[in-house]
Amino acid sequence: MAKPVAQESKIAAGSSQSAAAAPVKRHISDEPITRKNWWKHLNFLNITLILVIPMLGIYAAYFTPIDKKTLIWAVIYYFWTGLGITAGYHRLWAHTSYSATLPLKIFLAAVGGGAVEGSIRWWSRDHRAHHRYTDTDKDPYSVRKGFWYSHLGWMILKQNPKRIGRTDISDLNQDPVVVWQHKNYLLVLTVMGLVFPTLVAGLGWGDWKGGFVYAGILRIFVVQQATFCVNSLAHWLGDQPFDDRNSPRDHVITAFVTLGEGYHNFHHEFPSDYRNAIEWHQYDPTKWCIWIWKQLGLAYDLKQFPANEIEKGRVQQLQKKIDRKRATLDWGIPLEQLPVLEFEDFQKQAAEGRALVLIAGVVHDVSSFINDHPGGKALINSAIGKDATAIFNGGVYDHSNAAHNLLSRFRVAVVRGGCEVEIWKQAAKENKGSVAHVDSNEARIIRAGEQV
Amino acid sequence: MAKPVAQESKIAAGSSQSAAAAPVKRHISDEPITRKNWWKHLNFLNITLILVIPMLGIYAAYFTPIDKKTLIWAVIYYFWTGLGITAGYHRLWAHTSYSATLPLKIFLAAVGGGAVEGSIRWWSRDHRAHHRYTDTDKDPYSVRKGFWYSHLGWMILKQNPKRIGRTDISDLNQDPVVVWQHKNYLLVLTVMGLVFPTLVAGLGWGDWKGGFVYAGILRIFVVQQATFCVNSLAHWLGDQPFDDRNSPRDHVITAFVTLGEGYHNFHHEFPSDYRNAIEWHQYDPTKWCIWIWKQLGLAYDLKQFPANEIEKGRVQQLQKKIDRKRATLDWGIPLEQLPVLEFEDFQKQAAEGRALVLIAGVVHDVSSFINDHPGGKALINSAIGKDATAIFNGGVYDHSNAAHNLLSRFRVAVVRGGCEVEIWKQAAKENKGSVAHVDSNEARIIRAGEQV
Ligand code: HEM
Ligand code: HEM
Ligand SMILES: [Fe+2]
Ligand SMILES: [Fe+2]
Ligand SMILES: [Fe+2]
Ligand SMILES: [Fe+2]
Repeated sequence: MAKPVAQESKIAAGSSQSAAAAPVKRHISDEPITRKNWWKHLNFLNITLILVIPMLGIYAAYFTPIDKKTLIWAVIYYFWTGLGITAGYHRLWAHTSYSATLPLKIFLAAVGGGAVEGSIRWWSRDHRAHHRYTDTDKDPYSVRKGFWYSHLGWMILKQNPKRIGRTDISDLNQDPVVVWQHKNYLLVLTVMGLVFPTLVAGLGWGDWKGGFVYAGILRIFVVQQATFCVNSLAHWLGDQPFDDRNSPRDHVITAFVTLGEGYHNFHHEFPSDYRNAIEWHQYDPTKWCIWIWKQLGLAYDLKQFPANEIEKGRVQQLQKKIDRKRATLDWGIPLEQLPVLEFEDFQKQAAEGRALVLIAGVVHDVSSFINDHPGGKALINSAIGKDATAIFNGGVYDHSNAAHNLLSRFRVAVVRGGCEVEIWKQAAKENKGSVAHVDSNEARIIRAGEQV
Repeated sequence: MAKPVAQESKIAAGSSQSAAAAPVKRHISDEPITRKNWWKHLNFLNITLILVIPMLGIYAAYFTPIDKKTLIWAVIYYFWTGLGITAGYHRLWAHTSYSATLPLKIFLAAVGGGAVEGSIRWWSRDHRAHHRYTDTDKDPYSVRKGFWYSHLGWMILKQNPKRIGRTDISDLNQDPVVVWQHKNYLLVLTVMGLVFPTLVAGLGWGDWKGGFVYAGILRIFVVQQATFCVNSLAHWLGDQPFDDRNSPRDHVITAFVTLGEGYHNFHHEFPSDYRNAIEWHQYDPTKWCIWIWKQLGLAYDLKQFPANEIEKGRVQQLQKKIDRKRATLDWGIPLEQLPVLEFEDFQKQAAEGRALVLIAGVVHDVSSFINDHPGGKALINSAIGKDATAIFNGGVYDHSNAAHNLLSRFRVAVVRGGCEVEIWKQAAKENKGSVAHVDSNEARIIRAGEQV
């Protein structure tokens, strides 16, 4: 962002990296920030562009009456310049998620420049590094260094260009619009950031000062802060429906702030998809614009990841969440840890007054549950000392899944020769057959209808 | 509901079932409905109580000015009588999900009677049958017979008492409040349904006619229709977070209509829980009242299913949904169905121009993907003819889970001696180890980070 001077000025097709020849002395960003050297860490150009000038703009606003037309124009131009970043810099150039005709490219390069966030070339190189090295030290705006670092800090503090990960931008170096915009970036910034919005308001309805302050300076500030949220908020707030190993997150608030760039977990997983939101009801005006441009013949080759792949990712992430949840629950003592009882002993102990019920080869002590039994005391009492497998499973009442789960908490023993269970244990020992459904933590999955 | 005459009148502790002695001739409900006999199928008493009288009430309302006080009183009495059904008939007596002191029991038996839905004893017997035989022919209001049947039809049409499932109501026969209310049901209905609401409005502010029409007749109609929704809407609209083998469903709309009885999937799974909604933000005023009565010392022994059991059910149902979703997706040709290629053949074919990349022992034909590769053509091309396992997994770039999934669609062969895969296949053949994560359909689960 706003780093026109810091950008290398030569554009050789081969050298896609800045600072090709490493200086021998240490870069200031490698020194700790101290009371003496803190000012050396600051990037004063960027501070001026993203903090000082907006402050002056806010100050000037006190003396500048708001014209309704200028306000509307500022909002419209906010959307244009915002789209320049989201539909242009980001989805077209950094990710080549679609192709654009020359007129659309020129429009996007122009209004994108008006957002004052650096040249396409500089912005895309960093952004590709951000995707390739997300959350690592090579990520130019890693959220692991803090929310404010990812939002602003990385521009306010001087960066060692060698730290940021290498990326291939040979395609951008071959794009004449990108190359021209990069070479003439200061001109583009001035004309599209300040002159043009002022001219429209000035020539249009005579509000020169308002045009400069509102559609120029303050609009730049809002667009900047809004798009910075993709680096901060989108890595900080929301859900992770596709992968939770890295920081990107989906949230509707981020989407509203960033013209639809808020479905950022999806975006990092499927970066070359021209959409960020895949559901029709989610807010992604950038996608809508690209789609309209396609209908108008201005954009083509809109890339989409196959729905099958997207759903695969969603299913896997959900499975992971379930596996984690499962591990926190008590599924009863594993059958193989239960003592083995002779059937005669089971009957004897029940006759002696222990409330033991045999179901599917497992002995359950239901004494704590008799009074709570939703089917009444009489029925559950009638099963004590008996093999109640059939009556429990439909003979008298076909118990719910919940009842089967509950049962597993009352397990106290396994009966020798208890049919199903013995077979189960044997199979488990030999690791044969499909009885051993285990999750990724090797914990047994006990599914509805499969409880023993 | 409203079946005072059809109820058996003797209450012997032992005979918990109606129609103990079966009549020899066939019951009318066993005959098909024809043009000639349709009127014989109708239960005219119920039709009068739930349809004709309300119609007359609506007609009378045209000639009855609405007094604001009467309206407020009708709404209050609506809540009281509704609670009589939900907190009294349903959660206290049918499910014994808590215990109540005598004064609370008398209050609930009185206002519940004012809802004109039959005696506690009759209502609870049917309701227990509904739970025990849900969705079967023995369910008195099975939704499988249609939405309107479960809402009204079962009362409008004559029923063979022998059809409805047997249930144990010995506890109710021992409750003096239940027995008294059942014996004097017509009196309770008249006094609490019509006389009392009329008296309050008449003696209170002189609106005798309004009290009768609005707080009496029309209020009865609204309470009836609202609580009937538990049998119809709650088995028809919404999600099934705990079990989807039967019809009960959770929906906030049903909850709003029925004083909180809308979390009906939960309720059928955990019927003896005094709550229907378990989250604090869900609408369950019946639960809130029971909880307040407990604080006042009027209710005690509030039963709750352990959270562990509730969560187990939720995890299992979610697992089921994921397993179903997984089965609809394409996970690539299973490894064991791929041809085996010698490493030299792989290299030869790649040299001849096939875009083959070897990753983790599997040969992938990426020709269709080179132009779409988000990391650029150059990098993916550089891997052709090579074992790219390391570069794909972090050497150059640590590909996302999505990239791993995508890869499986390009599989064309397995390389002989291809390390990991060969071991995998061997293990799969011998059914050893944890490699074979299978879901309940025996389909292989391919988890994030486990793709080969
Ligand atoms: C041995 C341990 C038992 C446990 C843990 C158990 C658990 C439960 C649970 C949780 C319910 C609530 C409804 C449901 O979840 O399906 C229930 C209902 C019922 N149980 Fe059991 N039960 C046991 C034994 C029995 C036996 C042996 C019988 C019959 C001889 C029986 C008959 C019933 C009936 C008829 C109901 C239905 C009650 C109704 O909905 O009105 N139960 N049981
Ligand atoms: C062989 C089949 C390959 C497939 C299916 C594939 C797939 C992908 C996908 C889906 C992405 C998007 C980001 C992500 O999902 O992680 C990606 C990015 C990338 N791929 Fe590959 N890739 C393949 C081979 C390679 C190879 C062989 C290399 C390196 C030699 C490579 C280097 C990269 C790089 C550097 C990126 C990051 C692009 C960026 O974010 O700017 N890929 N690849
Ligand atoms: Fe990001
Ligand atoms: Fe991106
Ligand atoms: Fe129900
Ligand atoms: Fe119920």
